[in-house]
This record gives sequence, C-alpha cells and structure tokens, in this order.
Amino acid sequence: MSDARVVVAGASGFAGALAAHLVHRHPRLELAAATARADAGERLDRLYPRYRVPVELTLLDPDDPPEADAAIVAYPHGAAARVVARLMEAGQKVVDVSADFRLHDQSAYEATYGEHGAPELLGDAVYGLTELHRDDVRGARLVANPGCYPTAALLALAPLAREGLVGDVVISAASGVSGAGRVVGDRFHFVSVDENFSPYGVEGHRHLPEITQGLGELGGDGRVTFVPHLLPIDQGLMASCFVSPPSEVDAGELQELYRSTYADEPFVQVVPDAPGVREVRETNDCRVCVATDPRTGRIMTFAAIDNLWKGAAGQAIQNLNLMLGFDETEGLR
Amino acid sequence: MSDARVVVAGASGFAGALAAHLVHRHPRLELAAATARADAGERLDRLYPRYRVPVELTLLDPDDPPEADAAIVAYPHGAAARVVARLMEAGQKVVDVSADFRLHDQSAYEATYGEHGAPELLGDAVYGLTELHRDDVRGARLVANPGCYPTAALLALAPLAREGLVGDVVISAASGVSGAGRVVGDRFHFVSVDENFSPYGVEGHRHLPEITQGLGELGGDGRVTFVPHLLPIDQGLMASCFVSPPSEVDAGELQELYRSTYADEPFVQVVPDAPGVREVRETNDCRVCVATDPRTGRIMTFAAIDNLWKGAAGQAIQNLNLMLGFDETEGLR
Amino acid sequence: MSDARVVVAGASGFAGALAAHLVHRHPRLELAAATARADAGERLDRLYPRYRVPVELTLLDPDDPPEADAAIVAYPHGAAARVVARLMEAGQKVVDVSADFRLHDQSAYEATYGEHGAPELLGDAVYGLTELHRDDVRGARLVANPGCYPTAALLALAPLAREGLVGDVVISAASGVSGAGRVVGDRFHFVSVDENFSPYGVEGHRHLPEITQGLGELGGDGRVTFVPHLLPIDQGLMASCFVSPPSEVDAGELQELYRSTYADEPFVQVVPDAPGVREVRETNDCRVCVATDPRTGRIMTFAAIDNLWKGAAGQAIQNLNLMLGFDETEGLR
Amino acid sequence: MSDARVVVAGASGFAGALAAHLVHRHPRLELAAATARADAGERLDRLYPRYRVPVELTLLDPDDPPEADAAIVAYPHGAAARVVARLMEAGQKVVDVSADFRLHDQSAYEATYGEHGAPELLGDAVYGLTELHRDDVRGARLVANPGCYPTAALLALAPLAREGLVGDVVISAASGVSGAGRVVGDRFHFVSVDENFSPYGVEGHRHLPEITQGLGELGGDGRVTFVPHLLPIDQGLMASCFVSPPSEVDAGELQELYRSTYADEPFVQVVPDAPGVREVRETNDCRVCVATDPRTGRIMTFAAIDNLWKGAAGQAIQNLNLMLGFDETEGLR
Repeated sequence: MSDARVVVAGASGFAGALAAHLVHRHPRLELAAATARADAGERLDRLYPRYRVPVELTLLDPDDPPEADAAIVAYPHGAAARVVARLMEAGQKVVDVSADFRLHDQSAYEATYGEHGAPELLGDAVYGLTELHRDDVRGARLVANPGCYPTAALLALAPLAREGLVGDVVISAASGVSGAGRVVGDRFHFVSVDENFSPYGVEGHRHLPEITQGLGELGGDGRVTFVPHLLPIDQGLMASCFVSPPSEVDAGELQELYRSTYADEPFVQVVPDAPGVREVRETNDCRVCVATDPRTGRIMTFAAIDNLWKGAAGQAIQNLNLMLGFDETEGLR
Repeated sequence: MSDARVVVAGASGFAGALAAHLVHRHPRLELAAATARADAGERLDRLYPRYRVPVELTLLDPDDPPEADAAIVAYPHGAAARVVARLMEAGQKVVDVSADFRLHDQSAYEATYGEHGAPELLGDAVYGLTELHRDDVRGARLVANPGCYPTAALLALAPLAREGLVGDVVISAASGVSGAGRVVGDRFHFVSVDENFSPYGVEGHRHLPEITQGLGELGGDGRVTFVPHLLPIDQGLMASCFVSPPSEVDAGELQELYRSTYADEPFVQVVPDAPGVREVRETNDCRVCVATDPRTGRIMTFAAIDNLWKGAAGQAIQNLNLMLGFDETEGLR
Repeated sequence: MSDARVVVAGASGFAGALAAHLVHRHPRLELAAATARADAGERLDRLYPRYRVPVELTLLDPDDPPEADAAIVAYPHGAAARVVARLMEAGQKVVDVSADFRLHDQSAYEATYGEHGAPELLGDAVYGLTELHRDDVRGARLVANPGCYPTAALLALAPLAREGLVGDVVISAASGVSGAGRVVGDRFHFVSVDENFSPYGVEGHRHLPEITQGLGELGGDGRVTFVPHLLPIDQGLMASCFVSPPSEVDAGELQELYRSTYADEPFVQVVPDAPGVREVRETNDCRVCVATDPRTGRIMTFAAIDNLWKGAAGQAIQNLNLMLGFDETEGLR
Repeated sequence: MSDARVVVAGASGFAGALAAHLVHRHPRLELAAATARADAGERLDRLYPRYRVPVELTLLDPDDPPEADAAIVAYPHGAAARVVARLMEAGQKVVDVSADFRLHDQSAYEATYGEHGAPELLGDAVYGLTELHRDDVRGARLVANPGCYPTAALLALAPLAREGLVGDVVISAASGVSGAGRVVGDRFHFVSVDENFSPYGVEGHRHLPEITQGLGELGGDGRVTFVPHLLPIDQGLMASCFVSPPSEVDAGELQELYRSTYADEPFVQVVPDAPGVREVRETNDCRVCVATDPRTGRIMTFAAIDNLWKGAAGQAIQNLNLMLGFDETEGLR
C-alpha cells in the first residue's frame, strides 16, 4: 500500500524517465501512470532498460487525467503550463520540471520562452530549490522545479549572496549531454560530442534570468555573467563561480559560513577540495567547495550535481516528499 | 637530405613523443636521436604505435650529446635547465618545452618550481608564444616554449591586453588528460577520469605566474584568477576568459580588433561562434572567439587548442622552424 | 541493530571498495572494518568519494582480525589464501573475491597463478556462481567468488551446456577498465584507453581454466577459445559466445530453454534483443540473450553484466546473503 | 596545377566529408565540387570544422554533373547506383563508397538492399579491397569500395583463406559510431552510446553477404558467423576472427604466411601483439595479428582499422590513386 499515487507526465524524456523510476522504486509512492506523446504505447523499460519500470507509456488526456494525488510534469517549456493547470484542477499537487513556472514575472518568462500558457498560476508557484525555499515547498500546490544550472549556481552562491557578498559574479559552468534533454540532432550525436568541449549559449542562455532572479532574492545585485559548456559525459554538472566581493573576506570565516549554512542539509555537502562530478553521479547530492584567491581577493565557489538528479528528477522527488508530508530524503538514498 | 638534424630529448613523454613524430615526418628535419631515461632501449613505435617513429630510444649523455643542429627538450621542469645548458654548449639551438625558462625572473621561477639549474641562461631565453614574439624567436638560440594554458589564455587575451582593456580577468580553463604529462597514478587512471570533470589547482596553478607575466608584457595589470579543470578527453584545451574592461567597448570594434590582430596568422583563426576543442584536435591551430555580455559590460573570449600541439610539441616545431629560417608552417599542415 | 558484522579486507581496490559500500548500506549487515595495506589510515570516503563510506581504512592483522561474523576478502590472487585461512580460523564465514579458491584442482591453480597459500581449504570452497550453485553456497563456510568473465560466460552458456549442446565454443568478451583492478601503470592510464579497443590475453587469459572447469561441470567438453578485449568504459562486461552444437536446435525451443532456466532468478533476465552493458550498469543483474544463425547452425548467446557488481562485489553480497540465511537480494536492489 | 579534378558526391556524410578533405589536401587532386542534398548551400568547413575544406556544398544535378575526371560517391545504398551511372556516362571514373556495386550478384544485392538502380553496371564494377584486387582496380572505371567490416575481416582472413584454411569462421567485430553514418536518432545519441557496448545485427548484418562473397573468392567455403558490436568511440574498428582450420597449422609457419603476404603492402602491418584501434586512428593502415590457440587448434586473427579511413574514404582515395595512375599512397600519409 502506497501513501500517494503519482502521475509522471512526459516520462519518455530523460528527466521524466528518471522521475518515473524514482517514483516506481519509492517506498511510499505508486506510479499511477507514465505518459508520453510520441512514445505512447511503448514500454518504459524498453525505452530506458536500465530504469526497470515495467509499465506502458500512455497518452495523457488533460481533460481526463489518471486518478492520482500528485503529478510530476516533465514537458518541454511552453507545453507544460496548460497541462499543469488541468492536473491542478483535477486536484493534484504538481511539481513542474519545465521552466514554465520558474520565473515569477510573466514578461520575463515571455521574453525568454514565448507566450505563457497559464499565467494565472504564476502567483501560486513556489520555486523549488528545496534548500532555499523548504517551508514554502511544504505548503505548495505547485512547485516550479529549478533548472539544472540554477540549482548548482544558487547552492554555490547562496551563502555569499545572503551576506551581501555577491556584487559581481562570473559563472562558468559545464554539463553532461543529458542536460539538453532527449533532443535528436547532429549536435548531440555521439560523434559531435565525443572528445569535444565547447561553450554554448554565449549570447545569453535561458537559465540566466532564473539565476539572476534567484540571486536577487538572496540579496545579490545581479551583475551575473553565465556561460555553460557541453561536456562529453552523460550526467554531471559543475558550476564554477567567481565572485568579486565588495569587501575583504576572511578565508576561515568563509569556510565556516558555508559549513554552517549547509550543516543540516541532507543533500548538500561542503567539501574541502574541489569536487568532481563523478562523486555525485546518480545521487541527489550537491557538493560545494569554497576558496579564496588571495592575490585578487576573489572568492571561488564550485558546486557539483548530477543534472538529472538534483538538477531535475531527484529534486522533483525531494520537493514532492515535502509537499506530501514525507521525509525529504524518502526514496532518494 | 634534410636541412637540419634535431635531437628530441625526453621523447618518452606525451609532448616529447609527439615532437619526435613531428620532426620525423618534417620535410626539412631529420631526427638525430630520440632520448629517454626509464624507457631507453625501447622502440618509440612500440611505446607510441600511432606515431610511427621507427627508432630506438637512447640515453642522453649530456657530456656527449648526439651531433645535431638543434634540440627539443621535453624534460620535466627542474630537470631541463642543466641539459639545455649542455646542448647549447654543444652548439645546438634549443626549444625547451619544460617550464624552466618561461619566467624571466629567477625568484619567481624558484617560488613555483624550486631551484633553477641554469639561471645564467634566463636572459637568453625568448618566450616562444610565436604569434606574440615572432621576431625574437627568429633570432633566438634558446626558446622557452609556453605552457598549454598560457598559450590559449594569452592568445585569447592579447588583443584586449594591448588595448589596455584587461584590468581584471577570470580564466576558467579545461584540459584533456595528456596535458598532465605521462604521469602514472590514481589521478589519471581511466576510472578516475572517465565521466568526471573537476577543477584543480584552485589554490594556485603553476601556470598562473606565466599568464600574469605574459599579460603584464602586453599591458595587462595582472588581476588574474585562473582555475583549470580536468576533462575526460585525451587532447584538447579550452580557455574561457571573462574580462571586466575599464571602459565600455563596442561589440563591432571588438570583432574587428580580433580579426585584424590575427588576420595574417597561419595558426590562429578568429571564428564567429564559440569553438569546440574537437575542431583543433591534432592540429597546431588556435581558434579564438570574442563576445560581449551587454548586461554586465563584460567581454568573453574563448580559445581552443590541442594541448599537445599548439600547447606543446606543435608550437615547438613552429618555433624551431623560425629559428632555423624555415617557413613557420613547415611540417605542421 | 544489524544481524551480522562483516569485515571487508582489501577495501582500497575497486571490488573491495564497492563491497564495503554494499555492506555499509545493507539493511542487515554492519561494516565491522574495512582494511587496506598501502592506504591504511586513509578514509574510504576520501579514496572513493562516491561510495560514501565514512570509515578509516585499517591494517588487517591476520593474527588478530576484527571481531566479525563474516568477511569479504578482496586481495590480489596469491595473497588472499593465507588471510582467508586465518579469518576462517577466527570463525568467520568468508567470501573470497580473489581467484585463490576458484579452481578445485591445486595443480591447475598453480599452473596459472603460482604457489597456493592454503591448499588444505580447496576442498571446502564452494564456487559461488550463485545461480548454478545456490544450495552449496547456502551451507558454505568459504565461497570462491567467480571471476567477472566466467560469471558472464557461464550464465550465457549454462542452459546449453546442461543440454549437452556445448561441444565447441568461442567466447569473445569485452570488459570495462575497472575489471583489471586498481592497477597503476601506462596500460590503464586514461590516454591509453580512451578511444581505444583491443584484444588482450590472446595467448591464454587466466580466466580460461575457470571457464572450462565451469563448463565441464555443466556437461560441456571444454573445447573453449576465450579472448577478452578492453573497452573504453569504467564498468560493464559483455560475453559474446558462439557455440557449434553437435546437433540441430530449434530456435523456439532454445528461447524456451533460456526462459525456463532463468524464470525464477532474481538477477538474471532473458531478453529478446542483444543487451547493452549500459542496461546493467550499477546493478547485480545479468542480461542474457540467445539467438541462432540459421546459415551455419551456430548458436549465439550474449550476457551483459557490471563487472564490479555481478562480476565481483555484488555477487559477493549475493553469496553472503545466502550464507547468512538472508534473502538473496537483500541490499542489492 | 592538379592532375585530376574530383567530385565528391554526398560530402555531408561522415565518409563523404572525409573524402572531400582527403581530395582537398591531396597533392595531385583538385576538389571540383562537394555535393549534398539537405545541406546544400552550407559550407563544408562549418559542418565539419576540423576538415578545413573551405567550399560550399552544392546540389548535384545528375543530368549536368560538375566537370571532373573522377568522382567519389558517398550516397546511401540504393541511392548511389543511378548517380554512379550518370557520372560514368559523363566520362568520370567512379569510386562508389556505398554498397550498391559490392555484390556481384544482383539477386544477392536485392535480397539485402532492395531494388538495384543500375544492374547493367554490376559487371563493370571492381571490388576495391585494394590489397586483394590491385590489378583490377588499376584498370577499372567503376570501383565498389568495400564496407568497413568486410575490409578488416577480409584482410585478417585472406592469408588463411588462400591456403584453404578457412572452413568455418566466427567474426566478432566492433566499430565506433561513425561507422553507422551520420544517422540521426536515439540510437546514436551520445547518451545511448556513452559507457555502453552492445552487439547488433545479430539476426544478420548486411555486411555478411559481402564477407562471404569475399571469402568465397579467396577459397573459403563460407561457413561464416558475423556479429558486430557498437563501441563508445567515434572512429575505429576491430575484427576478431576465430577460424577452425581443417588441418593442423604450425604457429611459426602461420606468422611467416602473414608476414610474407603483406610484406610489400604500404598500408598493412603484421604486428606481433594484438593491435588497438587507437594505433590506426586517422590513418589508412590496417594492423593485423595472428595467433593460435594450441588447446583447441583454432587460429585467431585480429585486424584493426579506422572505419572512416581504410574502411571508407581512405581506401576510396587509395583506389582512386590507382585508377588515375598515381602512387597508391599519394595523399594518404
């Protein structure tokens, strides 16, 4: 007997498939349905053998959704909002893994992503970077699950931003290929990615407004430059952040600041040496390290996550656990 | 009949082996000897089958070096200086691929690398970032071949630095594993590197003094933060540079500045989009791209090289060509 | 409260570290000690961050072993036998992950591996390919955990061998680098393995006697050719087996034979299409597929495992579960 | 001034792009045109930056082909035959990289590939495994360039087959992803291939008839089982062949047989130890090794090639050189 039944909508994408896996193996959740569009009718364990979810993907009829207590929506941005609205009307609590409810401001959203499908819900959505908004997540009916880059960058920078130390920041980040979603095309063909490494989105990546919004709420002033790079790995994301603080900072106090900020966090570890993404592979953990550059006064902080776990489906489960009154770590160890 | 005979000393390491390959296939050079310590007696084409150099590695006796016109020394730093001195005494022109003659200031060298083995030669050494010091290289008897990170970073930043625009710079770089040399140990074991990505040398990488020296000569003021990362690839290096210029810069003029700076360079291409390291694999090319971040006024510039070619052995041949009066590109196409 | 305390001896190697991880997270086991030689004093979660085992590696004194109910010994072959003997004298049940007790015949062992350290125990050792020797494992005090290649090959071939169909077999196998253990040297340096693929042990791999012994017990006649290849991945092993059966075989009956053989096995799945090693990564599963080549009458059978899990530490836990009277799958899902 | 002008038709695929690169850099050839369908209008050096071919892809009008002396056609099978016919009518010598003219027998072709577009030319086509058919290639107007697997397998087996030793053979092969061509889809997405290894085409790969035809011509009797596997690398192919010879073979004579067979071949090297595909990366070489399994009497032979070079575009140039009366190695070193 499960405590709650959960629909995963968009279970044929990378994040959705992992969400279905995590729901399926969760001790207190039951997978009510896993839905997909093009792949409806296909078995999920044939599409993603390693996730071992023995169910057939079904088509989601938004007017007659599967009976469930909650839903994780892993649609492409733009397509998610209307489905989220219907599922909420059907009484389900929703974690939206898309970008549709991450930006509070409709015009900011539309400048980046195009017309919004359910702007009336923007006010209800809680930004689900769990460690920063845990109490709000607990009471939320709709959680906007953060993007992968914002998750790592904000966890790396939050302790500094709250102290007013983030006046100006460069975020040089890198992600494995699964972060781009199950997009088919030359760009993510094995031969394009193998033995390669390259910056992208230099002209302005769509995660930037989400990062600046997040930093702004923490007290940062938003002078952010953010450049992601594509890594020849499947899962893993590193945010390397370079902060020019307005005033000098003591190295020991800095370590203490980070340690105390995350001391009680089940999924954030402050580590003494720069972490590698391999350390967090297939986990919901974020490993953070902070250091100073005495020559320039700059603060450097690094955060490593698995982009599909803490950067997408893992954090979705973490949020869902809180929304349903469970322990936050349930099903994620 | 070759025009010049060349010894490659230290040909069992990654850079030295490639140097031996490039000398061997060079239309105007002859490989007089390829030397090694631990691997002496081994055939080079057995140690590095893909380089197809059918010679036996020999021990170098510094007191009785092989007869030759020139030498490429690819020893570890610290060990190179004394050998370089002996080869020069024997009348050979030398390109030193180690770090021993890159820093002009002996105390700066010794702070990073330990005691210097031939400080009397520091004044003779020309810093061989060819595009920046071509005329000096032409007349040099000793060229200090630049480090891989400095090569990419300085080519990315030189046009800005000369215009006085490099007041403050973050260099977030990444290199394939061969950049660390043929070092044996857990850290470069396949299982440690595979599916991983991680910053290192955060506390101060030894290429930093070389970068600040180079920027200083170009007019930069040295407020440099430099953090390298280890990539799960064998060859390839990206320097992603973030510059806060003292005054506003016009985007079009910036492109023009880069284009004109490198217009006549055979090995530097200014490209419109951020390059990938795969584009320069197994070439001596450096691909540079510049962009502005209008939100913050920052300038971003990216340079991709193959760390073993332009970042080591390729540039060594480029320099040797000039020292011997050949066309700079000979044997490198 | 745990049901049993377990020592992992040799926890600094790849298989031993995973064994320590699996014991540590096991609901009914407690990690009594994790021992190592060169790395004693080091924390296991520093050596293998991703395994999250927060203990310090200690030196094992065979004359005064840690108090425990059982031990997993992951020493190099040759070094294991004597330690196993001491731990058994101390009353511990032992799963030996080394090769020391896999071959029943002392002279066969010594022809391949050198002098045996505890030949008096050879008669007590049960060969722990769980699916083939489950009942014996249950009652065993000493289990010889199979090699990674024999595990995959024997699971692929067992249904055929029992039917007397394995008269002559070619096993062309491939393994990720972790299968070679945490051996340091040029051969497993990232740069040697990356973008490479190569046969090895062509003159006779030491897993061959183990495969022929296993096939012999199942009814095969031992005309086995076995060639492994090194894959540029960290974990994963494929055994591709080509059998020339003495008589014609019906394709449908063959599928049914495999399906019925493994129908009740928790860790073996007979799949319709050739599996990929990615499907079994970080699991204790073996995925098997069988097909016929109507042109030649040959039977082809493929088995994919994770060499560190089902091929080493995972199967060790599976065996330990049975020896301790637990459910076989405990701690392995 | 070039000696011959060459069209590369289908230059947007992996093999065609490399062919264009090799023609472009060839000392005696000029690239008359590089054509493509979907990518016409795109620059080749934008699609494949690393090949540095500064030309725009054009549409090929088969009724009005570019003026040229010869053509390399790298179309998908089925689409090539008709274009080849037109180019030949226009007086061009043609190397066809597709499968369309590899099988001499029209019905064998059509059983595997569907209707043939120019069966009247089948009699004119010379099978271009250069080392086996050099004299015929010299005089040919149409060369059918072999498939990548057949190239490696036949070079590995030819010495045995000619001696009547190939009665029964298992070919277990593995190829990098580029061997599948620039096919877009889930299967060759980075995330599908990374850390994976899997057999495919088990039910009968379309290169099998080509291998059996080739072996038959050499004296083999065609009892061939062939299974390819997909490797997580971009370029490289290994054919591991297991032969049960009808009579016993002396190990020393076997080595001598291979050595003498290939002694004068510029692109085949018989090596003492099993080669790795990394050794032949970006070369037109084939490295072959032969060994015996004294326990079973089996002969094992391994051949490593770069599937895009010797397995496609490199061998196309090798053949074209002969057809045009040049040295076979021109432009391939």
